[in-house]
Amino acid sequence: MLKDFEPKKHEDKQAIAVQLKELRARLLAQQQLLIKAKLPVIVLIEGWAAAGKGSLIKELISEIDPRFYQTVSPVITPESEERYPFLYQYNKALPENGKITFLDSGWMESVVQKFLKHEITKEEYHRRIRQVNEFERQLRDGGYLVLKIFLHIEKKEQFNRLQALAEAPETEWRVNGNDLWQHKEYKRFLQAYDEFMSKTNSTIKWHILDGSKRKLAVHDAMDLLVMKISHGLENGRFIGEPFEEKFPLIEMPALSEVDLSPTIDDEEYKKELKKLQTRLTELHNIIYRKKIPVILCYEGWDAAGKGGNIRRVAYPLDPRGFDVHPIASPLPHELNRHFLWRFWTRLPKTGHICIFDRTWYGRVMVERLEGFCGEHDWKRAYNEINEFERMLTDWGAVVLKFWIHIDQDTQLARFTERQNTPEKQWKITDEDWRNREKWDMYEVAVDEMLEKTSTRNAPWYIIESNDKKYARIKTLKIIVKALEKACDKHFKKMME
Amino acid sequence: MLKDFEPKKHEDKQAIAVQLKELRARLLAQQQLLIKAKLPVIVLIEGWAAAGKGSLIKELISEIDPRFYQTVSPVITPESEERYPFLYQYNKALPENGKITFLDSGWMESVVQKFLKHEITKEEYHRRIRQVNEFERQLRDGGYLVLKIFLHIEKKEQFNRLQALAEAPETEWRVNGNDLWQHKEYKRFLQAYDEFMSKTNSTIKWHILDGSKRKLAVHDAMDLLVMKISHGLENGRFIGEPFEEKFPLIEMPALSEVDLSPTIDDEEYKKELKKLQTRLTELHNIIYRKKIPVILCYEGWDAAGKGGNIRRVAYPLDPRGFDVHPIASPLPHELNRHFLWRFWTRLPKTGHICIFDRTWYGRVMVERLEGFCGEHDWKRAYNEINEFERMLTDWGAVVLKFWIHIDQDTQLARFTERQNTPEKQWKITDEDWRNREKWDMYEVAVDEMLEKTSTRNAPWYIIESNDKKYARIKTLKIIVKALEKACDKHFKKMME
Repeated sequence: MLKDFEPKKHEDKQAIAVQLKELRARLLAQQQLLIKAKLPVIVLIEGWAAAGKGSLIKELISEIDPRFYQTVSPVITPESEERYPFLYQYNKALPENGKITFLDSGWMESVVQKFLKHEITKEEYHRRIRQVNEFERQLRDGGYLVLKIFLHIEKKEQFNRLQALAEAPETEWRVNGNDLWQHKEYKRFLQAYDEFMSKTNSTIKWHILDGSKRKLAVHDAMDLLVMKISHGLENGRFIGEPFEEKFPLIEMPALSEVDLSPTIDDEEYKKELKKLQTRLTELHNIIYRKKIPVILCYEGWDAAGKGGNIRRVAYPLDPRGFDVHPIASPLPHELNRHFLWRFWTRLPKTGHICIFDRTWYGRVMVERLEGFCGEHDWKRAYNEINEFERMLTDWGAVVLKFWIHIDQDTQLARFTERQNTPEKQWKITDEDWRNREKWDMYEVAVDEMLEKTSTRNAPWYIIESNDKKYARIKTLKIIVKALEKACDKHFKKMME
Repeated sequence: MLKDFEPKKHEDKQAIAVQLKELRARLLAQQQLLIKAKLPVIVLIEGWAAAGKGSLIKELISEIDPRFYQTVSPVITPESEERYPFLYQYNKALPENGKITFLDSGWMESVVQKFLKHEITKEEYHRRIRQVNEFERQLRDGGYLVLKIFLHIEKKEQFNRLQALAEAPETEWRVNGNDLWQHKEYKRFLQAYDEFMSKTNSTIKWHILDGSKRKLAVHDAMDLLVMKISHGLENGRFIGEPFEEKFPLIEMPALSEVDLSPTIDDEEYKKELKKLQTRLTELHNIIYRKKIPVILCYEGWDAAGKGGNIRRVAYPLDPRGFDVHPIASPLPHELNRHFLWRFWTRLPKTGHICIFDRTWYGRVMVERLEGFCGEHDWKRAYNEINEFERMLTDWGAVVLKFWIHIDQDTQLARFTERQNTPEKQWKITDEDWRNREKWDMYEVAVDEMLEKTSTRNAPWYIIESNDKKYARIKTLKIIVKALEKACDKHFKKMME
């Protein structure tokens, strides 16, 4: 890749200036077409320190209406990076449909820098490369136009530029220790950039541009961008094919096979509840200190008892360390982004617990059944979700998923009770009755979901909830056990 | 206040337990009514370290459906506090209509702690108290139900609790240096809390509860909350009266008096543009290092040339240090909060520039004229906006507001040109034509806005834009001059 890069020898400055003007006009015109076609664009500019990444972005955006783009300069700081998964900030920066995000360095710089600084292990390095490939594929499959540019300069050129910056009083502050370190380690960086690019060059190709010729680099970047958009406009929104990677799955029973008869008597319930909640309080303290993130996912039939179950889990937790995210229909700005975006942006910090009251599985249930997304979209989602959750557990998160299960008779009884109890009427809507009619369709979808997404790292648990109290105790037990295991594992890992 | 606090002597534990149960049931029922009445609630729990703030919140939320509340534990860290205005994180935490935010300590603790640590001057301390009063009044006037509780314990009790926490291995980590310091300085804190509460007790009253009796404190807090909500539900959403504080205003001409004939010739334009943009690049570097936040506000007639003007200002800026926020109609979750919320959450960090393409002045223009808010709301807004902007400039921000001005003939000419030029047609909509018909109404509103909100600290500039190039140069000159002044002032302040 980088080692074989041959800069263009000739540079016809006049021709470039003329073409650049034309390209700018085209980009300006494309803006409106992007909005109409609802195509989102991501432009990632990586490259050497002092190669001119910022200036390049400045030129690319100079003619575009500020309403249609954002520029993002990710920082590698403890707060933004260390307490969230590696790809968190890049996911957060995803543009809405019709808009463009320009990234002034991104996931490549982060991985390479941390690896060369020995802040991540070789194993983690390879894991991140895999995650980057998954991320880029998910973006492409979700209809994002992604352009990746590496701005290259030779060591000598970098020296001259850093010197010029460092010796002028008004720019001196711009040269930081990282830049100088990179320059000293130019060869190692070259090697590492090269390797990173080679390993992330399949779904979305890298483009290496010569940073030493500023005008030419602007021209070439603009040309690539205009071509990319033009291609996207002609072909329409890309929709990825469904595919199935082999994830280690846990075999799940069909819902119809689940025995819903288990109950618990009141005395036993009270005793167990108290014991488990006390233990959960202790464990919350420990995971907070060990900085283990915990993600609890609730799905289930209407009136299955999700709300009451969540309350029993939340009650013993320190309010400073947990959040409950009720998930309703997406808002316009959420609908205009990758379907996982609104979950990425709600992830907990390390050491925090977050409870999702309904989740990203809406994709393969309501969105599938109501036609809110295409067939390819929901079929592809099983794999996308498995990748998403693996990324969470690789990050160190405990991910537990509960299907709160009841049978149709129990639902009917609860619906009827809600209807007849004034203070519960708000809980029941016409939509609930309509959904109830689609029970069989939903059951097919849920069975398929449980079958395809109960991975070893992020398993599903079917919670028999005809007896709500039984369901609460079972859920609490699963959580307590999983947190104990996580704390234990965490200690073992530290002792290695 | 705190000094005269007399704890209740008798505590009928059984009666309290019974009442508490009733209160919980009432709160649960109120939840639905809050949603229907679209009433937002803020519960601020302040108090001594180890007084049991977290546990109190835990009890308050234990029966509420997690979909209807959030708990927030503000932290006083450089990132969240120092690089944003003091009230930023509390504004960010505002609940949506119908929901409740519980704050585990908030603006009181922040002000008192920073003051006692000498991290803010006496002057700044008083300024923050004023800002708190303004903030609370704006919340109340905007229909928020605000409950402020101080959880009190005696010094001896605090000692016992801190000791118990510190000596148990699993809770030891919870006692931090701040807590110990507060305990040592108990008397000074008592004095400071007392003063703070006395000075912020007019719009929204403080309630002091005895933290040493846990059950009683929960009961009393729950009782206060239920009463507050009950009162709110009975009386409906509160709408504050308009009022006018005296702000030092700059006299503005009526729009009809503005001479729109100034022009600039092409050669002069190019020369000036280059000079000013070069200077702006330098100044952006300086304000970035000096950490001066800059907020540029654009308002103006349709087709007045805002977009092109903004582009000329943005072009010389480093993309890493600025953002453009195009402001369209509020999204549902924005509409469901205080009208300034979506601007609070978009404020720049210190050292960054942000450009608002349309602003919070929509309140006194489109919202006023289209009836999107009540008469009291927009009449009150002049003052609320002046307070908001004073808070920004007190924080150290440069706030400049531009009214991009043209006459009706020029607008017609530009509309017609847009209509007749295929690549510009997207810029013109039926709504633009409809708005044009309301020119006279808008002119009245704009005149009133300019008259009432051109404060010395955040002045309006009318930019004559019949000649767009003239307008750009004038805007750039104003920005350059203001930034130079700010850098200069910043240096002088440091030298004091």
